[in-house]
Amino acid sequence: MQVNSIILLDLLGTFAFAISGIRLASRKHIDWFGAYIIGLATAIGGGTIRDVLLYVTPFWMLDGKYFLTTGVALLATLLFKEKLFRWGQTLFLFDAIGLGLFTIVGISKSIAAGLPFWVCIVMGTITGSAGGVIRDVLLNDVPLLFRKDIYALACVAGGVVYFICHHFYLPTSVTELIAALTVILTRVVAQKFHIQLPILKPVAAKHHTKEDEA
Amino acid sequence: MQVNSIILLDLLGTFAFAISGIRLASRKHIDWFGAYIIGLATAIGGGTIRDVLLYVTPFWMLDGKYFLTTGVALLATLLFKEKLFRWGQTLFLFDAIGLGLFTIVGISKSIAAGLPFWVCIVMGTITGSAGGVIRDVLLNDVPLLFRKDIYALACVAGGVVYFICHHFYLPTSVTELIAALTVILTRVVAQKFHIQLPILKPVAAKHHTKEDEA
Amino acid sequence: MQVNSIILLDLLGTFAFAISGIRLASRKHIDWFGAYIIGLATAIGGGTIRDVLLYVTPFWMLDGKYFLTTGVALLATLLFKEKLFRWGQTLFLFDAIGLGLFTIVGISKSIAAGLPFWVCIVMGTITGSAGGVIRDVLLNDVPLLFRKDIYALACVAGGVVYFICHHFYLPTSVTELIAALTVILTRVVAQKFHIQLPILKPVAAKHHTKEDEA
Repeated sequence: MQVNSIILLDLLGTFAFAISGIRLASRKHIDWFGAYIIGLATAIGGGTIRDVLLYVTPFWMLDGKYFLTTGVALLATLLFKEKLFRWGQTLFLFDAIGLGLFTIVGISKSIAAGLPFWVCIVMGTITGSAGGVIRDVLLNDVPLLFRKDIYALACVAGGVVYFICHHFYLPTSVTELIAALTVILTRVVAQKFHIQLPILKPVAAKHHTKEDEA
Repeated sequence: MQVNSIILLDLLGTFAFAISGIRLASRKHIDWFGAYIIGLATAIGGGTIRDVLLYVTPFWMLDGKYFLTTGVALLATLLFKEKLFRWGQTLFLFDAIGLGLFTIVGISKSIAAGLPFWVCIVMGTITGSAGGVIRDVLLNDVPLLFRKDIYALACVAGGVVYFICHHFYLPTSVTELIAALTVILTRVVAQKFHIQLPILKPVAAKHHTKEDEA
Repeated sequence: MQVNSIILLDLLGTFAFAISGIRLASRKHIDWFGAYIIGLATAIGGGTIRDVLLYVTPFWMLDGKYFLTTGVALLATLLFKEKLFRWGQTLFLFDAIGLGLFTIVGISKSIAAGLPFWVCIVMGTITGSAGGVIRDVLLNDVPLLFRKDIYALACVAGGVVYFICHHFYLPTSVTELIAALTVILTRVVAQKFHIQLPILKPVAAKHHTKEDEA
């Protein structure tokens, strides 16, 4: 992919992630600045955790565009309100694109840090998914990620495909493209056909274990 | 400001932050040790996140006084109970002073780390505000910060004033004093006149977006 | 202790911590992958925070066994369901052993990093306890740690005993064994005799303080 189109996709993904945070915040009687912070945490949270675990400078410190894009997302929400969500399918696609791109960025940065491949997949998944978890924790909900649809698992799938392509010596740019498309397609297909993982049934404890005691 | 008065203000701010955590914890059927931890998280949480993002040794590891001050705050709560909150306005002032001081400390440390000025303002805001967010997350509430009054925004205002003073070559000590006073005054004025940011109205989605699917 | 038995205890502890996360997750309508992530966060969360604060590579990146053990814990839950918890007392013991071992690992790593002894005790406590806090935050509960029984305090007790033994020049392996046994015994005794810390009674504020305003 060309550098310009990557920057564009990065901004679209950031925008979609921020919108998802701002929209969920709007259900919780939160003020404009709070909505901005939650949008921001959704957009940059995953990448920040990755960078802290890699001991590199958090990516958003090096480029103001993530803070600006979140500001644009808040402005768009305030201006267009419900109208914005007529483009719900478009936002969903942006979100899936963001997920794909962020996952690949996470994997690439982890490879550059010399980590084993399974750790790279974990870091790609964190980059893509952790922002949504932080959003839900801040909004006092059980993270949606744990309850519905295929989300973090799409990142894992993309990561596995990445290392299969890598194993067969495909050029890096092709590998990245195929892996990102895997993430995006997994998301889109899971949504279209309502594919979900099985729910874990409650397991009751008759005796004492950690959580009864702790 | 003299070093001695800064240490005093630092302890007063820590004390007020810890009290705020302990008091909110008392509403949730939490034991003494839990209250201590929540008070501590409120007092040192923001600075710890800042130091982790800057890759410097967390400030509380270098000086036991933050753990001790939180212990004093717990003791004061246990001994004086409701009587402590007759001095509610005094505690509010300590809290505002702490917010001002912590914001400036965050900005100074970030300047020393060579970060661009807008990142320094973000780090100052994190230093001042993130402790309260951690407190509310641990107590299973939507952070008050997002819902009421001017809090994090006071840190942002102080940060902007800091860099305006800096731009006009004011001496560092004067700059710090003016910026800290900006934070404190913004808090006090916002409280006195019940100034709040507008609440974000719920925006419903008719189509699929991230949070419906994730 | 021999290296082999330490590895075994480490795996048993990891297994028990993961089970505690997975079981609590099962009450919240969470899917298999979500349960895995929560089990994982319970098992490796404390050690990860410790390593981030020490600026060393997170321990789980260097060895896949923690991710595998969590997978085994999920599989065991899916296969054996309620039957697994007939061994509730055994799991409780594994959990206490894990707590003891993780606390000592946290202390040793912090000593190696040259930290003062009280910081080492804090880091040992974080290593043992923070995973359970993360678990409860992700599951949208007030952490059990703050509400019931002696848990984090057992880590503190073990840490204090560690430094008393250290002060009297006991060999490191003996010191570690005594300290770990202190943690385990404190947990077991507190559970058996239902020893709990006093609950902090609600303290109402008549005047404004941080949390009324923030």
